[in-house]
Amino acid sequence: MIAEGREPSTVAFIAVDWGTTSARAYAVDAGGRTTAMRQAPLGVQQLKGADFAHALDRLLGDWAALPVPRFAAGMIGSRQGWVEAPYVDCPARLDTLARHVTWTPGRELAIVPGLIYRDEQGVPDVMRGEETQLAGMLGDAKGGDSFVAVMPGTHSKWVCVEGGFVTEFQTYMTGEAFAVMLEHSILGRLAARDAGDVRPGPAFSAGVAHGGTALSLLHSMFGARTLALTGDLAASDVADWLSGCLIGNEIAAARRWISQRGAAAGEVRVIGGNALVARYTSALSSQGVRAHPGPEDAVVRGLIHLGRQAGLL
Amino acid sequence: MIAEGREPSTVAFIAVDWGTTSARAYAVDAGGRTTAMRQAPLGVQQLKGADFAHALDRLLGDWAALPVPRFAAGMIGSRQGWVEAPYVDCPARLDTLARHVTWTPGRELAIVPGLIYRDEQGVPDVMRGEETQLAGMLGDAKGGDSFVAVMPGTHSKWVCVEGGFVTEFQTYMTGEAFAVMLEHSILGRLAARDAGDVRPGPAFSAGVAHGGTALSLLHSMFGARTLALTGDLAASDVADWLSGCLIGNEIAAARRWISQRGAAAGEVRVIGGNALVARYTSALSSQGVRAHPGPEDAVVRGLIHLGRQAGLL
Repeated sequence: MIAEGREPSTVAFIAVDWGTTSARAYAVDAGGRTTAMRQAPLGVQQLKGADFAHALDRLLGDWAALPVPRFAAGMIGSRQGWVEAPYVDCPARLDTLARHVTWTPGRELAIVPGLIYRDEQGVPDVMRGEETQLAGMLGDAKGGDSFVAVMPGTHSKWVCVEGGFVTEFQTYMTGEAFAVMLEHSILGRLAARDAGDVRPGPAFSAGVAHGGTALSLLHSMFGARTLALTGDLAASDVADWLSGCLIGNEIAAARRWISQRGAAAGEVRVIGGNALVARYTSALSSQGVRAHPGPEDAVVRGLIHLGRQAGLL
Repeated sequence: MIAEGREPSTVAFIAVDWGTTSARAYAVDAGGRTTAMRQAPLGVQQLKGADFAHALDRLLGDWAALPVPRFAAGMIGSRQGWVEAPYVDCPARLDTLARHVTWTPGRELAIVPGLIYRDEQGVPDVMRGEETQLAGMLGDAKGGDSFVAVMPGTHSKWVCVEGGFVTEFQTYMTGEAFAVMLEHSILGRLAARDAGDVRPGPAFSAGVAHGGTALSLLHSMFGARTLALTGDLAASDVADWLSGCLIGNEIAAARRWISQRGAAAGEVRVIGGNALVARYTSALSSQGVRAHPGPEDAVVRGLIHLGRQAGLL
C-alpha cells in the first residue's frame, strides 16, 4: 500500500501513529492511498513533555509546510502527551469516534480519543491507539463488524467488537511482564540471551502448554527457573519457554473471559508485527483457536477511515 | 526461647540458618534450648562463592573454637553455596531427612538437603530451608503431622504435609513479582513509595478481592495502573493494592490446587515474619480460610529436631 520514496505531490492528509517509543507519519492522497511514510524516535516517553510542536515538525520534515490536516492516534493523546484526548466510554461505536476528536491548542494536530471500559467490579481498563486499529478493520471481508481481536504487545488488548461497537476489552501485561521478569527476576539468571527474533520453537510450545493449564502464573512461570536448574531446559530456551508460558496464560484466561461474555472465541483476529503474530497464531492454534492475521497497516487505515468521518479527508 | 546476651557456656550444638541474603547462628545446649543468636550479612548471594569456611568463622566469632557440631539449612546447600546437598524426592518423610545430610569437605558443617517435587507434567519444583521449618513444626499441638502450610516470602511455598511426609508443594513468585513489577514496570509509575512496613489497609483488601477472582494476573495487576490513572486509587495505596492483588491471586490458586489434591484447605499454617503473616492471615480470612501462625523459630526447631535424628545432638 505504501510506495516508499515516491514524491507525495498530492498529499491531502497526514496520518500520524504517535506512540510511547516512536512516531510515524503517513502521507495520504485524496483517494485515501498512502503514498509515503516517515518515522522518528520521537515517542511520548522520549520527549517527556518537551516541545511537541517542534517534534512534529522534525517528524514531518518538508511535509510540515503542506496546508493539510494532520490526524494522530496513540499515546500523544495521553496525559503525558501533547494534549489529553479524554477517553470515550464503552460500549463505544468505532465509526463515531471522530466526533470526539481533540485538537492541540494551536490546531497543529487532531487526536483520536482513547477508550475506557469498567468491569463489573468497577475496575477501569483503557486503550489508546488500538481503537484506531480496530476502526481500520471495520468492513474488512474476514471480520465484518463483529469479531474478537487480540493486539499483542507490551500490553496486549483483547477486544469484543459487536456490530461496530467495542463492547468490552481487557489488557494483559504479557510483553512487559516477560521483559521485566526476564531482566530483573531470578528467572533470567539461568537464561542465555539470544540475538534477534527467532521463530517460536518446541520450548515456546511447551511453555504455552504449561502456562495454558496452570492455575496461577505466579507458580507456572517459576518453571523457567526449575526446568533450567534440573537441566530439563537449555539456557538458550529459557526465554522462549517463559514467553510461551505467559502467552499461554493470557490466551487461556482471555478465552474464558470471552466465553463468559457469550461471544464466540473460536476465531480471533490477531493484529500486530509479524514475529508476535506468529507466536500468537501458534499458541492460539494449540488451544484450538483459529487466528486470522489482521492488516499490518490497521492504524493508517483507521486514521483514514476516522479522518473521513471527521471531515478531515 | 532465646536468651540474648546470656553466655552460651553449655553449647552442645550450633544451628545455622544460612540463606540467600543473611546468615544466623544459634547456640543450643544439650537440652535442645537455644541460648544465644548471632547474625551477619553473609548470605550466599553476597559471598558469591567466596571462602565459606572463613565466612562461617566470622559468623560464629568465638563459638568457632567450640568442639561442637554445626548443622545448617538453606541456600548454603545449593549449587551456588558451599557444597551442593542433593535434593530429596517427594513424597519425602521429614523425620528421615537427617539421613541425607551432606558434609562440607573439611567437615566444618553438615547441611540439610532440599526437596524436589515433579508435577504431573514433569515440571519440577524445589525448596531449600523450608523443609527444615516444616520439620520444626512436626508434632506441634495445632498441626499434628498432617497439615497444609504456606511460607510466604520472595518465593512463597505451599506445602501438603501428610503423616509427616511432604507429599507435594508449589512455589509462587509472589514477593519477587511484586518487587520487580513495582520497581521496573509501568505499575510503579503512579505509585508513591512509603517508608516502612504498614498494616494491610482497605487498599490491600480491595486488591485481594480483585486478585482472588480474576482469571489472570497479567490482566488483574494492570488495575494498579488504571485505578491510579482514573483517581480511584491514591498514589500512596498503589503498592498496597498490588500486594493484595498478587497475594489474592496466589491464595485463590493455591486453594484450588489443594482441593484438587483432596486435601482440606479450610485451615492453613502460616510460617513467616510478622508483617507477612498479618497480610496472609487477612487475605486468607477474606477467602474463608482460617490461618494459624506457625512458630517464628521454626528453622531452629527443625535443625534441633533433625540434628537429634542425625546424632549431632
